[in-house]
Amino acid sequence: MMHEQRVLKAVARVSPVDEAWEARGRERQQRLTKPPGSLGRLEDLAVKVATVQRTTRPDVSRKAIVVAAGDHGVTAQGVSPYPKSVTAQMVANFAVGGAAINQLAACAGAELVVVDVGVDADLDDLPGVLSEKVARGTADLSTGPAMTREQTALAVDVGFRLAARLAEAGRLLIGTGEMGIGNTTSASAVVCSFTGLAVEAVVGPGTGLDAEGVSRKADVVRRALTLHAPDARDPLSVLAAVGGLEIAALAGVVLGAAASGVCVVADGFISGAAALAALRMQPHAAGYLFASHLSAEPGHARVLEALGMRPVLELDMRLGEGTGAALAMMVIEAACCAMSGMATFDEAGVEERGAD
Amino acid sequence: MMHEQRVLKAVARVSPVDEAWEARGRERQQRLTKPPGSLGRLEDLAVKVATVQRTTRPDVSRKAIVVAAGDHGVTAQGVSPYPKSVTAQMVANFAVGGAAINQLAACAGAELVVVDVGVDADLDDLPGVLSEKVARGTADLSTGPAMTREQTALAVDVGFRLAARLAEAGRLLIGTGEMGIGNTTSASAVVCSFTGLAVEAVVGPGTGLDAEGVSRKADVVRRALTLHAPDARDPLSVLAAVGGLEIAALAGVVLGAAASGVCVVADGFISGAAALAALRMQPHAAGYLFASHLSAEPGHARVLEALGMRPVLELDMRLGEGTGAALAMMVIEAACCAMSGMATFDEAGVEERGAD
Repeated sequence: MMHEQRVLKAVARVSPVDEAWEARGRERQQRLTKPPGSLGRLEDLAVKVATVQRTTRPDVSRKAIVVAAGDHGVTAQGVSPYPKSVTAQMVANFAVGGAAINQLAACAGAELVVVDVGVDADLDDLPGVLSEKVARGTADLSTGPAMTREQTALAVDVGFRLAARLAEAGRLLIGTGEMGIGNTTSASAVVCSFTGLAVEAVVGPGTGLDAEGVSRKADVVRRALTLHAPDARDPLSVLAAVGGLEIAALAGVVLGAAASGVCVVADGFISGAAALAALRMQPHAAGYLFASHLSAEPGHARVLEALGMRPVLELDMRLGEGTGAALAMMVIEAACCAMSGMATFDEAGVEERGAD
Repeated sequence: MMHEQRVLKAVARVSPVDEAWEARGRERQQRLTKPPGSLGRLEDLAVKVATVQRTTRPDVSRKAIVVAAGDHGVTAQGVSPYPKSVTAQMVANFAVGGAAINQLAACAGAELVVVDVGVDADLDDLPGVLSEKVARGTADLSTGPAMTREQTALAVDVGFRLAARLAEAGRLLIGTGEMGIGNTTSASAVVCSFTGLAVEAVVGPGTGLDAEGVSRKADVVRRALTLHAPDARDPLSVLAAVGGLEIAALAGVVLGAAASGVCVVADGFISGAAALAALRMQPHAAGYLFASHLSAEPGHARVLEALGMRPVLELDMRLGEGTGAALAMMVIEAACCAMSGMATFDEAGVEERGAD
């Protein structure tokens, strides 16, 4: 129970954002040298950051992306076209800079933090990969619980502490991403558990299953939900039954960022499922959370609805790794630069609009 | 006729892109360490740049945004809630770094090039503003031609030469943007002329007209189209009749970038109208052109249809100045970084997908 108590204490540390700062932010947006509202969603994004930061000059110049990696016992059911060994191979690829997220994080000016929370391989020799392994992968969620409750709490705590450390080190915006062959199956089961949605509305092709594969994957998720009958009011039990170690860790990252007063950007379907788990543990975390993009994975739109969030980008991406988060972080930073660096009509000596 | 002949020669210098490079680019995307297609539109964007650059390692690290400014005689008809004097005031704001585009161009790592091609004020003392003034604003397009044909050709040539100079200086991606009170009216007339669309399908609130203002603006455009009966087969005559000096210059920027083998990103509604004029002068320029975002100005969707292009972003922006171009340039650069910097499956020792 030790880790669960830590998690409960951590969750209680998330404060609601102060809406008075939102009003101040909106007021500043009205005075900047542009037609009111003409920066569209950039204005909303910057005001949300400003509200979290209790300022009218938001700043997300120091950024990090946490990529949590873990394996999934459910791969035994043939739910992915890629072998399970690819999880460890891709973590090695992250370590040497060969993956998409290496390039996109660099473009976004974000530190890339790769954490092994549950890969089924010995990765201790990989430079630059944080070792926080809770277990060598989960058990097969279609035949029994993916994790124990204690493992789940420990994985959440790993993410929570990591986000808190990044916030202490001055990071102002944290992105989430993941690597784990089989994790769209786990994420689908998590999403169905929290939302009550039908399996076929959530399960999709993941890394590229054909229609028969999707149907097989949906059967696996259906069996798991029947087996566990997860109780959405107890989010840790949902994650333990059908979640993943990296999903639990990313829920912890969202909560840790929020508890530290730092904004957090969720990547796609799997990171979105983790964010959903976080909000079910602590609804106040929504004030700190951004949805980066709409994934091509069909269930992601359902996740965004459940989060009550509109994504920043819609680029038909479905890679994970935090790639969507990295791109959205660029847009959020640009939004903050505009809000903080633009002149007001008074400062610039520009006339405001007249009567129509 | 001197300038028109220069423009015709310039237009003839645009070569079609080489589709063999597109195939090579697609082939490289298939070998990178990600499920095929999983970077979605990033793959398409990077392959388009790669095709222009005749490489499989596209690079847009050196960027510039051209903001062309000009005034519009049609402001006499009450088509904007802002006084005409705001054009010069905003150019001064660009010069001191106070506008949205200053912040967003800096975020995107793009040089900002502000060119006065037709502002109705003496801006020669403004540091950092290129003086290429063709006239002190256009004439009122609702009562006569906005420009002479020679002025129009000269403005196109200004943009063409500027883009060619930027390309020579090593810029690999050029964005377009504009400033000109009244220019959504001019752009609407240009778009109607080229597409044959009904005025009410194109005219919108611009910087913030109410419904009555939009109706008045639509009447102005309707009168202009009746007066000039523009011939879409003669793009220069369309621009002369109802265009603007900054719109003509931005058409020149698109053509100049394409003639120099450099990619170009059009901002929103007005820059889109300029791009449409450019493609009507030289359809091959489409291979070099990117549509940055879908503006909240309703007619922009029609412009994108006419261009045959899907925008990179959809953020409800409607500011102009090149702000949407700046954001899209970040995404295009990220796409190129991924395509050029990622490891292949072979290089990384990552297993490819098995059978489903």
